[in-house]
Amino acid sequence: MGKTQGIADGGNPLFKQVYDYIVDRIERGEWKAHDKLPSVRLLAAQFKMNRLTVFKAYGMLKEQGIAYVKEKSGYYVSAGNKSNVRQLPAYRSEDARLSASVHLKNSLNDIQQIPVDYQFSQALIDPNLLPNLFLSDYVKRVFDLYPKLMGTYSTPQGDAELRQSLSRYLGGELRVELSASDLLITSGSQQAIDLISRTFVRPMDAILIERPTYSAGMDIFRQQGARFLPVDIHPHGYDLEHVESLMMNHRPRLFYLNPTFHNPTGYTVPASQRKRLVELAERYKCLLVEDDAFHDMYFDVPPPPPLFAFDTDGWVVHLRGFSKYVAPGLRICAIAARPNVLEPLITAKSLADNGTPLVNQKIFLHYFESVRMRQHIGKLRTALQMRKDVMERELAETGWSWVSPQGGLNLWLRLPDTVTADELLKLSIRQSVSFVPGDICDPLGEMESRIRLSYSFVNEATIKEGIKRLTDIARG
Amino acid sequence: MGKTQGIADGGNPLFKQVYDYIVDRIERGEWKAHDKLPSVRLLAAQFKMNRLTVFKAYGMLKEQGIAYVKEKSGYYVSAGNKSNVRQLPAYRSEDARLSASVHLKNSLNDIQQIPVDYQFSQALIDPNLLPNLFLSDYVKRVFDLYPKLMGTYSTPQGDAELRQSLSRYLGGELRVELSASDLLITSGSQQAIDLISRTFVRPMDAILIERPTYSAGMDIFRQQGARFLPVDIHPHGYDLEHVESLMMNHRPRLFYLNPTFHNPTGYTVPASQRKRLVELAERYKCLLVEDDAFHDMYFDVPPPPPLFAFDTDGWVVHLRGFSKYVAPGLRICAIAARPNVLEPLITAKSLADNGTPLVNQKIFLHYFESVRMRQHIGKLRTALQMRKDVMERELAETGWSWVSPQGGLNLWLRLPDTVTADELLKLSIRQSVSFVPGDICDPLGEMESRIRLSYSFVNEATIKEGIKRLTDIARG
Repeated sequence: MGKTQGIADGGNPLFKQVYDYIVDRIERGEWKAHDKLPSVRLLAAQFKMNRLTVFKAYGMLKEQGIAYVKEKSGYYVSAGNKSNVRQLPAYRSEDARLSASVHLKNSLNDIQQIPVDYQFSQALIDPNLLPNLFLSDYVKRVFDLYPKLMGTYSTPQGDAELRQSLSRYLGGELRVELSASDLLITSGSQQAIDLISRTFVRPMDAILIERPTYSAGMDIFRQQGARFLPVDIHPHGYDLEHVESLMMNHRPRLFYLNPTFHNPTGYTVPASQRKRLVELAERYKCLLVEDDAFHDMYFDVPPPPPLFAFDTDGWVVHLRGFSKYVAPGLRICAIAARPNVLEPLITAKSLADNGTPLVNQKIFLHYFESVRMRQHIGKLRTALQMRKDVMERELAETGWSWVSPQGGLNLWLRLPDTVTADELLKLSIRQSVSFVPGDICDPLGEMESRIRLSYSFVNEATIKEGIKRLTDIARG
Repeated sequence: MGKTQGIADGGNPLFKQVYDYIVDRIERGEWKAHDKLPSVRLLAAQFKMNRLTVFKAYGMLKEQGIAYVKEKSGYYVSAGNKSNVRQLPAYRSEDARLSASVHLKNSLNDIQQIPVDYQFSQALIDPNLLPNLFLSDYVKRVFDLYPKLMGTYSTPQGDAELRQSLSRYLGGELRVELSASDLLITSGSQQAIDLISRTFVRPMDAILIERPTYSAGMDIFRQQGARFLPVDIHPHGYDLEHVESLMMNHRPRLFYLNPTFHNPTGYTVPASQRKRLVELAERYKCLLVEDDAFHDMYFDVPPPPPLFAFDTDGWVVHLRGFSKYVAPGLRICAIAARPNVLEPLITAKSLADNGTPLVNQKIFLHYFESVRMRQHIGKLRTALQMRKDVMERELAETGWSWVSPQGGLNLWLRLPDTVTADELLKLSIRQSVSFVPGDICDPLGEMESRIRLSYSFVNEATIKEGIKRLTDIARG
């Protein structure tokens, strides 16, 4: 009983997952008219669910005429389902599931796209903090260097020169042997997560996912039909005993995690837990998907080494996205992994888009290696910390609580009991202030008293005024 | 019986598909130890296959200890399968299937990557035919125009300014009403095909596919687990009665086609067939996926209007890739479709990579709209036709046969009976000549007496000398 509560598909209730699973198979023609459906007992055991949950799904199928009951025998597929479905290839249940995730996605997009003066919902760097003029000059030099750049394809794995450079950089930082062949270049970490999901997750596979987590990450795994086993993230990491018990009992395919300046909470998992987590991953054969987009965005002290640094057996795949703080317009991310994991990902990449455009890789390479880039990162850290400090000062008197992050782009706040995130958002948008309500980041779709405020996108004066408005609204 | 011969999965025999299908379900835990497997009769009916084919698959499962037989009852899942599989999450049967497609993919890549002097295997434009210097100058102006370009994300659907421009261009050409909202920008047509495959095809779904066809297209649909129903393409199009019978009997999800200067044959489907094909698609609810990468690469006469121009009911999705002849380094493709088809594709795109990088879209937009670009396309047509003429002249005396194409990048030749494509390839690579053997383009993996020669990648002198070498080798 306790276990089933842990399985969720963000906003998609458990019984609906069983319902979708069955409808999907009927649509594909795997289960035909008058075929007997699996027994409630069998499905419950298969999905490690309560029988009542499966029973509820069957009840819904019966109500909608998709299944019928034979006394003392069980549930059977009704006639005429398939042809109905085939009439509308563009709107099958998979698409409904897609639409469901769009819906969620759009709730985030919708919020971010409302034109407000006090934009705290974008976990992006203020374009004014990027060295734009330098970049434009820079691009010209790159085109002079490679006059036929526009006429040339990249290999699927990515430009060898860029992989060489990044393997030196990441290898040094991770203190591991890393060569160009250990890296795959993708178009942003979004694509990296998607390639991993397509390659290693099948429908109804269990995966571990942090609670809360990156909402677009959830959307990707949900599209693949994954079942979520949430793992709470705390200021000092995870409950590793709980993680072990989930790994032992559910044999999840992978654990998608963001252990460094975690989005949305800003928490960082300590080194001791990282080591132990890699041991658990090896023991239970669970791939650790380490999304490390904020690694370089620390304030005072660099974070502990990534999980990848503790890995000896190939159970960690490391994603290093550079869109956030180097060049959002280029969309460059590197995946580091051992050959057994990397090779199928290269194939998936070659089928997905045949390789990230060479133009983007070459511009990124030369920019990333420049002295100006190192200076930029240093300055950016200082600017972010100042913005964070301003936001925290403005919030000090509110009685809202949060753990002050040591890096990253966000504050994760608990509101007082007098107001929910949704109520606050509705009111604050009228006053031209936006933020991300907590339920969007929660695989269980709860966390209604939490909000994420990004301090990275607007300047200090705007932060001051925006937070003032927000806290005024909350006071009512 | 005749029908089953038509179903193939390029190089993956039919019984192996059934085998994979069953192993996959056992691995996912859908079918557990001591569960009864579907009867041979049922599976044969479900997949419209000969019972002997299914029987062969079950024989193999039994031999490998994956299934066992109970007298007078049927096949059952053996114990202990699942745990074995779970030990190696990175190498499950899906990955084996992936590797199979890599293998095929690599045979093409392998050929193309052998450094030869006479490169006839690349269906790419010679970079020397692209206006590289103009482009480099051009890029600088674009960065001056949008100083914060590097710091800005695109929307998932693509830059509105680019979609506006392309909707005017394509709308005029197709003589249909087209607005910016009818277009989705992808990273190359490879990604467009992949998004369509993910959105509309499920494992074991039947799809129609031309024979021969674009080999990477096959790889993408194969990755999704599609069953192929090949449709022969002839110099004057398809046998539409056969197409109708396939649509009626198999209810395929979609038909992936390249009706204009078809790759690899160069054939063009006439206007009368286009109209009829759209009627069939509407009647049988089969999405027509029109890959139209070569539309502007005609020699004397523009091709007939695309299928999309005949569509009134939303059953055509039109892919217009610009990588081939505008800017391979940028990877820009536009998908045109009606909202019921386009909306789920936009979602798939947003989950796949959150939008094509803005840098690429803005550079493409301004380049594509320039006067220089129009001049470039005109010159390119002439250059390609001259290269084609040279190649045909050199081949005139060989006794090899082909249909002279009116556009595109390739000749599709039938060799004399004295030599197979594979033999010829082995010998010719030693003489620094490469080309694509026909079996790679064939969903049935046959066509061993066919080869594809691309005349687009090397200059006339090189074509002359290379073809001389090739024909000398063939003469023995």
